[in-house]
Amino acid sequence: MIDTNFINPFLAATLHVLKVQASIEAVPGKVVLKKDGDHLLGDVSGVIGLVCENFTGSVVISFPEKTFLNVMSGMLGEEYLELNKEILDGAGEITNMIFGQAKIVLNEKGYGIKTALPSVISGKGHTLSSLSKGPIIVVPFTSPAGEFFVEIFLSA
Amino acid sequence: MIDTNFINPFLAATLHVLKVQASIEAVPGKVVLKKDGDHLLGDVSGVIGLVCENFTGSVVISFPEKTFLNVMSGMLGEEYLELNKEILDGAGEITNMIFGQAKIVLNEKGYGIKTALPSVISGKGHTLSSLSKGPIIVVPFTSPAGEFFVEIFLSA
Repeated sequence: MIDTNFINPFLAATLHVLKVQASIEAVPGKVVLKKDGDHLLGDVSGVIGLVCENFTGSVVISFPEKTFLNVMSGMLGEEYLELNKEILDGAGEITNMIFGQAKIVLNEKGYGIKTALPSVISGKGHTLSSLSKGPIIVVPFTSPAGEFFVEIFLSA
Repeated sequence: MIDTNFINPFLAATLHVLKVQASIEAVPGKVVLKKDGDHLLGDVSGVIGLVCENFTGSVVISFPEKTFLNVMSGMLGEEYLELNKEILDGAGEITNMIFGQAKIVLNEKGYGIKTALPSVISGKGHTLSSLSKGPIIVVPFTSPAGEFFVEIFLSA
């Protein structure tokens, strides 16, 4: 199931939140479809597990450490050179803001999001494997803060 | 909310699955309650995001790499010296089996588990932070394969 009506609100919310919160203008690249079910992630990832009326899925925004430090420096107005608890909490805030924006649009379209389980994973080059089966849509972004990507998984 | 009726089926299922699948007799240690909301995990973690009638939460079983390799060697009957895709899939299988066992008991008790979002995180010394608030119950285990632990988070 590749449903652009579902995906686009998350991409729009990502662009909006980074622009408003951190003055970063990101540019989405070519969408890639992965089928092996593994998220190969960056160093800091915000994960939203979603339960909707008719399906489950997850949305992940994942940053290499350097990009994430630049985003947080932009957001908090202070230069950060290494990860700490405070700025990891910032990843949670970004994740929640992106979800909050996307949720409004999605529920207006009738997706009926019932529950979200938001969390942040950090760890150098971690991976996240869903045990459900389904395609993963990967959207790479470039920005002045560096590259990052958004992965959207929908259960089959 | 510290509900032993909810926690005990996961601990019993963990002991049962490791014994039956990998011939490993694990021993649970003293339960610890954490309040800062961060899972500081090992190297390979099975995560089950849970949506129940009245609350959400997550159950994590987390292994240091060495323990996990020993568990997988016991389970698959072959000696593994490093992580690879095949044995990470094994972490998913263990997670699903523990959840499947616990689910039967919990739903008999009326917990009404509606949906589970199981996944596996790997990455040297990764962390998982829930953005919901609530206590985390940590149960350390010792075993001939090494130490590991189970963390149960229930949203407030």
